[in-house]
Amino acid sequence: MARVTVLMGSGSDLEIVKPCLQVLEQLEIDFEVFISSAHRTPQRTDKLIASALQAGAQVFICAAGMAAHLAGTVAARTCKPVIGLPIAGSTLNGLDALFSTAQMPAGFPVATVALNGARNAAWLAAQILALQDSAVEKRIQAARQEMAMSIENASQKLEAQFN
Amino acid sequence: MARVTVLMGSGSDLEIVKPCLQVLEQLEIDFEVFISSAHRTPQRTDKLIASALQAGAQVFICAAGMAAHLAGTVAARTCKPVIGLPIAGSTLNGLDALFSTAQMPAGFPVATVALNGARNAAWLAAQILALQDSAVEKRIQAARQEMAMSIENASQKLEAQFN
Amino acid sequence: MARVTVLMGSGSDLEIVKPCLQVLEQLEIDFEVFISSAHRTPQRTDKLIASALQAGAQVFICAAGMAAHLAGTVAARTCKPVIGLPIAGSTLNGLDALFSTAQMPAGFPVATVALNGARNAAWLAAQILALQDSAVEKRIQAARQEMAMSIENASQKLEAQFN
Amino acid sequence: MARVTVLMGSGSDLEIVKPCLQVLEQLEIDFEVFISSAHRTPQRTDKLIASALQAGAQVFICAAGMAAHLAGTVAARTCKPVIGLPIAGSTLNGLDALFSTAQMPAGFPVATVALNGARNAAWLAAQILALQDSAVEKRIQAARQEMAMSIENASQKLEAQFN
Amino acid sequence: MARVTVLMGSGSDLEIVKPCLQVLEQLEIDFEVFISSAHRTPQRTDKLIASALQAGAQVFICAAGMAAHLAGTVAARTCKPVIGLPIAGSTLNGLDALFSTAQMPAGFPVATVALNGARNAAWLAAQILALQDSAVEKRIQAARQEMAMSIENASQKLEAQFN
Amino acid sequence: MARVTVLMGSGSDLEIVKPCLQVLEQLEIDFEVFISSAHRTPQRTDKLIASALQAGAQVFICAAGMAAHLAGTVAARTCKPVIGLPIAGSTLNGLDALFSTAQMPAGFPVATVALNGARNAAWLAAQILALQDSAVEKRIQAARQEMAMSIENASQKLEAQFN
Amino acid sequence: MARVTVLMGSGSDLEIVKPCLQVLEQLEIDFEVFISSAHRTPQRTDKLIASALQAGAQVFICAAGMAAHLAGTVAARTCKPVIGLPIAGSTLNGLDALFSTAQMPAGFPVATVALNGARNAAWLAAQILALQDSAVEKRIQAARQEMAMSIENASQKLEAQFN
Amino acid sequence: MARVTVLMGSGSDLEIVKPCLQVLEQLEIDFEVFISSAHRTPQRTDKLIASALQAGAQVFICAAGMAAHLAGTVAARTCKPVIGLPIAGSTLNGLDALFSTAQMPAGFPVATVALNGARNAAWLAAQILALQDSAVEKRIQAARQEMAMSIENASQKLEAQFN
Repeated sequence: MARVTVLMGSGSDLEIVKPCLQVLEQLEIDFEVFISSAHRTPQRTDKLIASALQAGAQVFICAAGMAAHLAGTVAARTCKPVIGLPIAGSTLNGLDALFSTAQMPAGFPVATVALNGARNAAWLAAQILALQDSAVEKRIQAARQEMAMSIENASQKLEAQFN
Repeated sequence: MARVTVLMGSGSDLEIVKPCLQVLEQLEIDFEVFISSAHRTPQRTDKLIASALQAGAQVFICAAGMAAHLAGTVAARTCKPVIGLPIAGSTLNGLDALFSTAQMPAGFPVATVALNGARNAAWLAAQILALQDSAVEKRIQAARQEMAMSIENASQKLEAQFN
Repeated sequence: MARVTVLMGSGSDLEIVKPCLQVLEQLEIDFEVFISSAHRTPQRTDKLIASALQAGAQVFICAAGMAAHLAGTVAARTCKPVIGLPIAGSTLNGLDALFSTAQMPAGFPVATVALNGARNAAWLAAQILALQDSAVEKRIQAARQEMAMSIENASQKLEAQFN
Repeated sequence: MARVTVLMGSGSDLEIVKPCLQVLEQLEIDFEVFISSAHRTPQRTDKLIASALQAGAQVFICAAGMAAHLAGTVAARTCKPVIGLPIAGSTLNGLDALFSTAQMPAGFPVATVALNGARNAAWLAAQILALQDSAVEKRIQAARQEMAMSIENASQKLEAQFN
Repeated sequence: MARVTVLMGSGSDLEIVKPCLQVLEQLEIDFEVFISSAHRTPQRTDKLIASALQAGAQVFICAAGMAAHLAGTVAARTCKPVIGLPIAGSTLNGLDALFSTAQMPAGFPVATVALNGARNAAWLAAQILALQDSAVEKRIQAARQEMAMSIENASQKLEAQFN
Repeated sequence: MARVTVLMGSGSDLEIVKPCLQVLEQLEIDFEVFISSAHRTPQRTDKLIASALQAGAQVFICAAGMAAHLAGTVAARTCKPVIGLPIAGSTLNGLDALFSTAQMPAGFPVATVALNGARNAAWLAAQILALQDSAVEKRIQAARQEMAMSIENASQKLEAQFN
Repeated sequence: MARVTVLMGSGSDLEIVKPCLQVLEQLEIDFEVFISSAHRTPQRTDKLIASALQAGAQVFICAAGMAAHLAGTVAARTCKPVIGLPIAGSTLNGLDALFSTAQMPAGFPVATVALNGARNAAWLAAQILALQDSAVEKRIQAARQEMAMSIENASQKLEAQFN
Repeated sequence: MARVTVLMGSGSDLEIVKPCLQVLEQLEIDFEVFISSAHRTPQRTDKLIASALQAGAQVFICAAGMAAHLAGTVAARTCKPVIGLPIAGSTLNGLDALFSTAQMPAGFPVATVALNGARNAAWLAAQILALQDSAVEKRIQAARQEMAMSIENASQKLEAQFN
């Protein structure tokens, strides 16, 4: 059963979104992924939300660029947590997507992560699910330790050269 | 029969939107106006769009601030022209609303006017309708002449003082 | 008879503008296209506007970058709908063109589409003309269905890989 | 037992943060609230995080302005979900706080809500907790219905006046 | 004979423009001033430019806000120096006017001064005219000395208090 | 003997700069303060820099708004540390002053503090001087403890009300 | 005798500045060009300004990026017209240079042209000199006609293809 | 004994930071360098700060991108001067890092240098240390003379070509 439903507004977002899917796999979190646009396929988006909810989706991750309405559209249709991943996909460096994703009206929050921050969308979903699943929490902590180790290793090489 | 359907995302937008309604009245264009939010009342918004279309709406004007998705929501559900009126309703001076309104994906344009440019939303609707209604075109031209006159009058006072 | 007149401020805008012309062709909408600058050829621009209006132009599409005055220049000289296509042609990512195009004074709206959103300029023109031409409306709807289908197809490939 | 720990970086943020506390109360979610700065009281902040975690905190809400590091500081010290509430507290309209809150490195997400979006910080916390607490979910849904009703009521007054 | 022609796009700009007129008077430079809009009164603007040129105008000062096209319009119609005074007259803090004024295409420069920098528009006009008029140059130098003196005086009060 | 020389570009900056002077007094650091503009009194600025250096100035604090060149001017004329205090004194919210102060070319750094961050300009000067003066260091540490205490006190009032 | 003195802050600006020199040559305007930095060679800059003035310089063109103080430095030392050419030479797309150049205090204007608008810096200098030199004015007008012609030619090719 | 401690938040910042290390070497200032993240290795960062202080560090240089909290983290834990080097490492051109670094609360300044201004971080550290070390001051002055010379040489080549 997929606990996370990942939606992206366009096939052209896939390259940016892939690290999100990789982190979910790394943390052994079941997910489904679909391309569906808030504007170009509104009925399909409505249906995907409904069927994901019926299938037990706990968290949504929505990636979109420009006037990035996808996360808001989902947030308006469920009270499951919705994570917004703004994509820098226009000439405006992603400011348009960041504002369109984060600046939601009261009552309908979108949990916004960094621009093109695909991995953080996955990490945040995992941290939410970890509240009920200590195995996920352990995997997060292990992964964080690896990240710390990798920083320490990089530093040691640098220190050996300069200090 | 209302030819223009005006939607605003929140009752707090009314003060900014009123000049739009006044220009429509001045140009004798029948309109309907509703408050409905893309996020807080998505089903109601869907229904209003559908019933407006059935009732013969030709043009939509959608006013919203922040992550201003209302115009995009309508644009996704009709191929009638949709005019987006971005409202400067957050701390970001309206940049959020301007980007969320204008930066639509290909195939689903929103005809965006100036920030808080309520009157221009009405003028644009009128110019679109005037393509089929020469009476409206004449009223637009008369109103433009009045505007020009009022500038000339203001200038004459100034010229009298300085030149 | 050309129902849409496309103006661009510089020959260097052509690459960005071409998809606009392609969408107009795809929707079988007659158009004319000219290069003329609000600043470098103001008399020529005036004449082109006048002759386009005489020849029955219904909608103008004006593409320009930087201090993008072309759409405003046309909007000041006709009450036909004027669509502004801001081009990201300077170091400022198009913010200059977006603001110069959208922030028009009351009475003289420019229907602004996304930065470099050439196709949307064409779609918007088509949606305006479709109010009087049901054949165009049908072509728009058919094209929208194709877009939806293409998204669904892209999604199915992705779903096959991940779900 | 407090399930939500609310931290704000300065006493001057209280006026903006209060609606967050009110929504938590309205949804009957136990919370604790503290003032502690990532910069001015780093040890105190560390201790508050540790004791909150020991006491069973599930979600953190961190409000801060300018170089808003508070949410990031918490996110670095726990893998519970951290909600960042950027405060528009400088001359930069909150752009500084928004960027400082959202633009976190991979592995340490902050779930960023709108600028000054205190209520959305609470709503998002509630939606996360509702995954394990159907009573909270029901209260969210009831509150959403009230919001929808209030929009409909405001619209009816407007419709009565204009339509 | 007026050597400087001051144009402003709207009567509402007058409060910001007045210090420009005062500096011109202080430097004993003959000027004319008119209100005329690039968009709302394009023919009138054309005529004013033509008659100003015939009457011997040497420098134009053009004040406008939002999509500030007035200076560009004049620059397109004369090769006399055109000074652009961008007015902060929208929600965008004048960024729209600054970009619309400064970002002119090659061949048609607008000499842009600071946002709301009315006095600098006058100073710049004076500095240009002073190239041919040593009396103006002397008045500029005298005025600069007064400014320097006034800073020194303000400093002395401050120094007396603190140093 | 004044160890810190405070320069501000205009008398109108005094209200913003005063907290800087107060912190210097609180930390018992001798300072001198002058008004002098990089543009309006360049010779005076040169002389003040020279005489301050002769008198033993160790650190410069330079406050200016808009095209804030004062700090850069000083940095070009001494290799003592120069602290830049950008003032939000135009319609641009201080972005102009922040960029003009921070974005110095290699070799001539300005130590830039927050917009309108007058107190931080003083704190930074103190921290630099404390490297050679342990009495100043102790006063900084004592002041930091007071700040921490004041946050704790504010928090206790809030905790008493809500926790 | 050089009537225009061109200064640039760094050798790395040369590629951007070259079209300025080419336009001056094309218009047969004598100029001198130097590299000198407001920060790295302040004394040299002072001397170059003084010797240029003695040699009869009428107009200065100053090109600089980042905290672009060069034009302001010159404007503070002469009342000849100073043209500022902001260079987009940092990660900020030139916003830093544009603000540092245009936002000058009252009394010391810099005539700012478009970002990287090297040719316009030359055109503006020429338009100022043309007030006293009808041969330059004629060359400007001839060059403008060529530009217009070249636009018309480009348009004709396009029209042949599409209209 | 290292007088300067250089920290960078990520190994990917090394390319940008290297010129900082080179300037420190050129000025014969002992330094240590480490990679440590405010978010990914907070305990390690704490320990590095503590051990650097014990070992006699006088100045910290902290390089980070995006939500650049590293400099602030250090500033909160020492009253030695902390120099912040904002890195342009996201789609936002470094605006996020610049704001996160400079906009610190009162009492905890970060001496912010230009975006990617690695060399200036080193120069500023040197200028601070030169207050107690005249040998460093002499090296700074010698280096500045070389820079001036190199500008003069570049200019001479240009002058030979054009003047």
